[in-house]
Amino acid sequence: MIEQKIAQAIGILQEKNIDMWITFVRESGTMPDPAIDMVIGQHATWQTAWIITRDGETIAVAGSLDVASIQDSGRYKTVVPYVQGIRDELLAVLQRKNPRRIAINYSTDSVMADGLTHGMYLLLSGMLEGTKFAHRLISSQEILSALRGRKTDAEIRHMKKAIQITLAIYNNVTGFLAPGKSEQDVANFILRQVKQYGVELAWDRDHCPAVFTGPEHAGAHFSPTKRKIAHGHVLNIDFGVKVNGYCSDLQRTWYILRKGETRAPKEVLHGFNVIRDSIRLAAEALKPGMVSWKVDAVARDYIVANGYPEYPHALGHQVGRAAHDGGVGLLPRWERYGRLPYGKIEAGQVFTIEPRLPIEGYGVATIEEIVWVTEEGAKFLSKPQRTLTLV
Amino acid sequence: MIEQKIAQAIGILQEKNIDMWITFVRESGTMPDPAIDMVIGQHATWQTAWIITRDGETIAVAGSLDVASIQDSGRYKTVVPYVQGIRDELLAVLQRKNPRRIAINYSTDSVMADGLTHGMYLLLSGMLEGTKFAHRLISSQEILSALRGRKTDAEIRHMKKAIQITLAIYNNVTGFLAPGKSEQDVANFILRQVKQYGVELAWDRDHCPAVFTGPEHAGAHFSPTKRKIAHGHVLNIDFGVKVNGYCSDLQRTWYILRKGETRAPKEVLHGFNVIRDSIRLAAEALKPGMVSWKVDAVARDYIVANGYPEYPHALGHQVGRAAHDGGVGLLPRWERYGRLPYGKIEAGQVFTIEPRLPIEGYGVATIEEIVWVTEEGAKFLSKPQRTLTLV
Repeated sequence: MIEQKIAQAIGILQEKNIDMWITFVRESGTMPDPAIDMVIGQHATWQTAWIITRDGETIAVAGSLDVASIQDSGRYKTVVPYVQGIRDELLAVLQRKNPRRIAINYSTDSVMADGLTHGMYLLLSGMLEGTKFAHRLISSQEILSALRGRKTDAEIRHMKKAIQITLAIYNNVTGFLAPGKSEQDVANFILRQVKQYGVELAWDRDHCPAVFTGPEHAGAHFSPTKRKIAHGHVLNIDFGVKVNGYCSDLQRTWYILRKGETRAPKEVLHGFNVIRDSIRLAAEALKPGMVSWKVDAVARDYIVANGYPEYPHALGHQVGRAAHDGGVGLLPRWERYGRLPYGKIEAGQVFTIEPRLPIEGYGVATIEEIVWVTEEGAKFLSKPQRTLTLV
Repeated sequence: MIEQKIAQAIGILQEKNIDMWITFVRESGTMPDPAIDMVIGQHATWQTAWIITRDGETIAVAGSLDVASIQDSGRYKTVVPYVQGIRDELLAVLQRKNPRRIAINYSTDSVMADGLTHGMYLLLSGMLEGTKFAHRLISSQEILSALRGRKTDAEIRHMKKAIQITLAIYNNVTGFLAPGKSEQDVANFILRQVKQYGVELAWDRDHCPAVFTGPEHAGAHFSPTKRKIAHGHVLNIDFGVKVNGYCSDLQRTWYILRKGETRAPKEVLHGFNVIRDSIRLAAEALKPGMVSWKVDAVARDYIVANGYPEYPHALGHQVGRAAHDGGVGLLPRWERYGRLPYGKIEAGQVFTIEPRLPIEGYGVATIEEIVWVTEEGAKFLSKPQRTLTLV
């Protein structure tokens, strides 16, 4: 898989007219640059420059004690060892290749392209000071955005499998839910299922799964509590698994019938349907070339037009090796998203769509689907939740 | 433990005359700032400023969806939520406290103090631009160095336990070693022992344990291979475990007797003894106030004076929550170590001492011990290997 992504990266360098891409790391077991899983595949202890060039070279400039392990994996064809300091060997590579544009591993806007620490940036700047390369550094954000975004067939296959298992587990959850059980009981049921399916969680266990029941809850990304499911609760779960290194990330909503009820109250149904329809509308708008924030606005405006408050987060993010896979998302024009909301959607990208709204007195309606952008428009990789599940 | 370290951090801010320490992170589950385990204890998704002040305040400026989880843990007393962007709320905190010196989480020299990514540094600089705070930023390296270095009694207790278990496992390894078994067999034996003891590995499984047998090996930090133990091999192992979040990191050396031998050949014994004695000499030199590189030089010079090449790495590093715990080490004056070799040793610090030398035709002699610096000098936390273990 890593060899495939390295080959893809070389193509992207040619397309973007970037001569060299350096992922500069140290002790990457402690601070793992997000590109390591994608195009490197191993950690290094000393300062290491993982270099890919537009003419197809792969070069690792590495501390002598890391060299054997890099040679053994064979992914980077040229391995240049150093003992006391990386500067001379790294400069020799730069002199030999003479790159005009050198992408390095930082980004203000995309977490998944921002693995270079500031201390390491200062070290690299210091090494290049006074050389012609000092002013040739650019962010590798657009490389990583393309590389993570454009999923290969194998990547889509792994993601479909992760989605399928998640939906199967959600199906089993419906039989488990009952008044008197706590959010933690539900989370533990899901964790047991994950074990039975022999897969990993898609993000950290404190928040995966997230389970919320009833009107008084604490917002998303919060650990399940001892709060008990009761009649008249809207309950929702946010959860995903990882299969062969690829993630799912899906949310579903249930309603716990009160005695005598055979369907959910009108206001609950209305809230659920608004969420469901906002996802359909956003998916219809999601096409190659579309500007990110405009897709978010489709769902956001629809929800507000129906009398609900806007959701306090983005409509969606890319999914891949990480549940939050970085790059362009479906993002409002908020300060925290930097310039990303102005980016364009590309074919091959896989997004979550996950709006939410509060239903006064009952809980929160929220659905999260996963869609794959093709030249013909967005295709659902998840079987969308069409109706509110009743318990 | 985190509450204790926060209290210690406040004392260190007072001592170092630093008004505020900000650990600025985002998606810290993906890029975990090394300070999180020490003084934060949880991850956050959106941009989050974890603030500790010299007058004892703990403040988290955090995205609205992270707030409940931070309030729930209760470690940061003031939680300031934001939705669209962190800037206004962060600036309000700065205006209120008006800190003259603001330490932020980057360091050129110490990995364990360098959690701020360059993208996040640019974002923070951008937010402060035009304010009086823009030029008040300093590195938090000296705070973290003191905080990680000065071990509390509880920390020393956990480390002693980790060391004790490691040495017990090494003891069991001696009975397992035999010609014909591979490095991987030995590594698997150790991994089974780690499971039986119910502890974690101190670093990543690819290199923990590291097992090398015989004269043709690949250097440290390399995965165990199928290479088989044979008569006349010097064999060494580098390995550690984590107990209650605290690490050991120890190396031991064995000799595999040839048929008819009852002791190791002279040149093997000599190499082993030079390593053992270089550790004793370095430990004797290791006292509060001593300059880092001079301790390294004691062992390095002794080994070279005995006719062996100098080891191609540092003499030792601090150990604690991480096996490589950052801060001042026992470091030669090499480019890659920056200014750290000129730092001074402090009481409370715990170091490895781990020189090595090649024994031509047999393998590598290397021992790694762990010592604790007290006002009276260095005390061995590990029972030192005095004699070459024969198999």
